[in-house]
Formats: sequence, structure tokens, C-alpha cells
Amino acid sequence: MSSQRLESVKNIIAIASGKGGVGKSTVAVNLALALQQLGNKVGILDADIYGPSIPTLFGLKDKQPSVDPEKKKLLPLEKFDLKIMSIGFMMRETDAVVWRGPMIHKMLQQFLEDVDWGDLDYLVIDLPPGTGDAQLSLSQLIPISGAVIVTTPQDMALADVVRGIAMFQKVGIPVAGVIENMSYFQCPHCSEKTDIFSHGGGKRKAEELKTEFLGELPLDPQTREGSDLGKPIVAENRESSQAIRFREIAEKVQSQLKVINQQKPNIQL
Amino acid sequence: MSSQRLESVKNIIAIASGKGGVGKSTVAVNLALALQQLGNKVGILDADIYGPSIPTLFGLKDKQPSVDPEKKKLLPLEKFDLKIMSIGFMMRETDAVVWRGPMIHKMLQQFLEDVDWGDLDYLVIDLPPGTGDAQLSLSQLIPISGAVIVTTPQDMALADVVRGIAMFQKVGIPVAGVIENMSYFQCPHCSEKTDIFSHGGGKRKAEELKTEFLGELPLDPQTREGSDLGKPIVAENRESSQAIRFREIAEKVQSQLKVINQQKPNIQL
Repeated sequence: MSSQRLESVKNIIAIASGKGGVGKSTVAVNLALALQQLGNKVGILDADIYGPSIPTLFGLKDKQPSVDPEKKKLLPLEKFDLKIMSIGFMMRETDAVVWRGPMIHKMLQQFLEDVDWGDLDYLVIDLPPGTGDAQLSLSQLIPISGAVIVTTPQDMALADVVRGIAMFQKVGIPVAGVIENMSYFQCPHCSEKTDIFSHGGGKRKAEELKTEFLGELPLDPQTREGSDLGKPIVAENRESSQAIRFREIAEKVQSQLKVINQQKPNIQL
Repeated sequence: MSSQRLESVKNIIAIASGKGGVGKSTVAVNLALALQQLGNKVGILDADIYGPSIPTLFGLKDKQPSVDPEKKKLLPLEKFDLKIMSIGFMMRETDAVVWRGPMIHKMLQQFLEDVDWGDLDYLVIDLPPGTGDAQLSLSQLIPISGAVIVTTPQDMALADVVRGIAMFQKVGIPVAGVIENMSYFQCPHCSEKTDIFSHGGGKRKAEELKTEFLGELPLDPQTREGSDLGKPIVAENRESSQAIRFREIAEKVQSQLKVINQQKPNIQL
């Protein structure tokens, strides 16, 4: 592992999920914005090579990063004061990403070495869902400070959380905690709540696995719409209850990383 | 490609999604049951090595397939008159599946060659989400009759549908059609409908890509609960509106496969 890479970045947070479709990318983007609203310099790297959604989430679908001719480095795009890089900027929507493992490894390496991130307090990495090649590659390439696992409350997603945490432990990456997304739905017509995907399983599973529970986020049509329109809820509606929830979660993530960093042995090679 | 394999199986349907968490496995299981209720002999193979959920969906989590000592073949489990095989039967919940591409290929090969499926009208294969190694391997290993793409209506999932269809076309697998899952939510308290994940995008995308639209399925807490409890809605509540919708979709899938089979060149090697 080369810890020389990304030395201007203080903390690297990997946002992971055992299962796809739990809202991982939406959580990654809004968590990055929440960390920034708490006063940090933040970047986000979309490493989801199977379905990069960061360009859509920021309304940057047709944009491309430019190159600094002097440093010979890629310059991340910027929006809402975040530095943003995605594999999605490099491919067309109709490209079938049928890359084999070694190619994924190579591409991620390039994203980490050849991008001019500048000084950052946090780099949030949106991992592909699951426990495959990309996660393995990343853990070999960069010193991830902590992993945040996003799940829905339903039993099937929770089984994958167990698998996800086991994978991070195997490769020696600390788990900062678990976020339960799609916790419940509040009907906009009658205000009654329905636990469409069940409720509370994320907290239960975090306690069972002795990991921090970072918070719950309801199924929220406004958050979903903001994601599809490239207008993340935390940036567009800072006083919404969802934005407040994201800042509470961001505060917990900050505290967890402090604990993790204090526990790290201070080895000079 | 060896078409000798699985010669006792008339049609192989791959259930795919560009993105995870769209309900692909729940759709696969209930579609298999619906095909059977239309009078077919049906098997289901869980090839989702990143998060096998078929054991949970059938309430078979602690079961293991037995071996026929004479034929030296694995015998699929049976429930609701379906033949069932899953990578999940072979691993513990806490195993992190960090297999590299070649190992995935080998395992799928074994599942196809060494399992005694018997005579089947349909073998439904639950693919891992996305466009990675497992899909490539499968397409090299077996003659898939047609792929069914499951999506939610939201923009981000639809972008992945385009990528998924492009992948199948690249490897020469016919696409039988698109199913829109989580189309809307009907509040159980006030009966009002909310398009939580938007609505109608699956149909629009299918028309745009000149592919059959097979039908839409609402977000249904009963269907989700049945999945978590190992009691698939189509088997447990045959007269529910969701079961009726699944049989309508199964009829469309049957017709599509007939069309595809008629178009196939009849080559004898």
C-alpha cells in the first residue's frame, strides 16, 4: 500500500453497501455536502464503475474534467464547493462496462494518482455495491480511514451488511458505522407512516456487530427527486428535516473518525 | 459456447438489472412461480454471487443440496414444486465473497454442469446486478434464450438499463423485455398513490430502446414481507393483485420467448 498517494487528504471515507439500490450514492453526496456545511474542505470520488451516478446526482452529466498542462494532472470538477471526480465523466451512457478485474484496478489507481485533489479534510469515496474486485483494489491502493455502510432495514439487505463488514475487517479497514436508509415512508396525503422496507434493522444489526449506528433516513420523494435532477437536498434545501438529519450523521462520522485516528499506531517507515 | 450443457432445459431466462436493489430477486422468484402456475416445469438458479438471496426468499437458509451418488450430480432443493439451486447454499452468511473473476467463472460452470435439473420448460437465472464478470461468464457458458431487465422508474436506474441492454447485445443475447418494479406506492391508510421513485420510466425506456415492456409492479409491503419471510407472494396469496400481475407478466414473457425461438437460425453443427 502506498500511503504517499493522497497525502494532502486528511481523511478518506469509503461509502459502501453490501447490496445495490439502497441509496448509497445519494447518501454519499449528501453526506459530503453535510460535512462541508460543518466547515470542512471536501471532495467526492465516484468509484462505482458498474453504475456511476455521481454525474447525474450533481447535474454534471455532459461535463468533463480538464487537465492541468503543467502538473499533468486531472482537475476535478467543482460544484457546491465540492471537488468532484467520476468514472462517469469518462464514458458514454451506452457503454457497457464489461471491464475485467485488472482493468478496474488500473483505472482506480489512475484516479487516485493523477487527480489534483488539493488540500482536503475529507475525501468521500462512493464504492460500487458488494464485495468484489473494486473494493479489494481500493483497499490495496489507498489508506481508507473508515468505511460507512449504508443499508435498508429489510432482512435481505442486512444479511449483506454482515458480509460487507466481514470484508472490510478481512482487509484491515476500520468500519466507522452503519446508516439505515429508507427507514420508513410518511404519506404526503395523510401523514401516516408505513415501514415499507421494515424499520430498525440497521440499528439492531449495528449493535449486534458492535459497530456505531450513525442514524436513520426516511424514504423521501423530495430527496429522490433532488437526486434525479442533480440538486442534492442538503445543498438545495439546507433547512429541510432531511438536511438536518444528514448534518447529524456527518457529526457522528466526524467523531468516529477521530476515535479511529487516535487508535491508529503511529508508525514511521 | 457449449450447447450440450442443460439440453433438458427448453428455455433459459436470465433476470438482470443494470443496478442492484431494484427487487430483481423478488421478481425472479415470483416470475418463476407465475410461469409454473401457467402449467410449466420450472427451475431457478441463483447466480448472484455478490449477494445470493434465493435461500432467504424461499425460507431455505439452513438447507443444503444433496448429491446423487450414482450420477455424481448435485440435486437441487425443491419448494413450491420449483427446483432451486443457489451459491448461497454453499457459503456462510459471514463469508465475504471476495472471489476474483476466474473463480466466479469456475463456480458458475460447476453449477450448470454438475446439477441434475431434469426436464424443465424454464430455468430462471437470477443474475448479479450490473455488467461485470459474472454476466460475461454466464453468457460464455450457456445458451440464454432471453434476458429480462428489471428496473425502478427512477432516472438513475434507467441509465443503467441502457447499459445493461447494450451489454446483452454485445454478447449476442436477445432481450425479452423490461419490467418496471416499485412503480408507485398506495398508502394502506388513505389509499392515495405516491410515485416515490417516479413512475412510467420503464415503459418509456423500453419503447425508446425498441424492447417489449412486460409490465409494472407497485411497491407492495406484503410482497416485501413475503420475501423476507421466505413466503413468496405468488405462492402464498395466488389471488392477490400482485400475483395476478405476475402471471400477466409471465404470459408476456412466454410469448416473447416464442418469438425469439422462431427467429433463431436452426443451425446443426
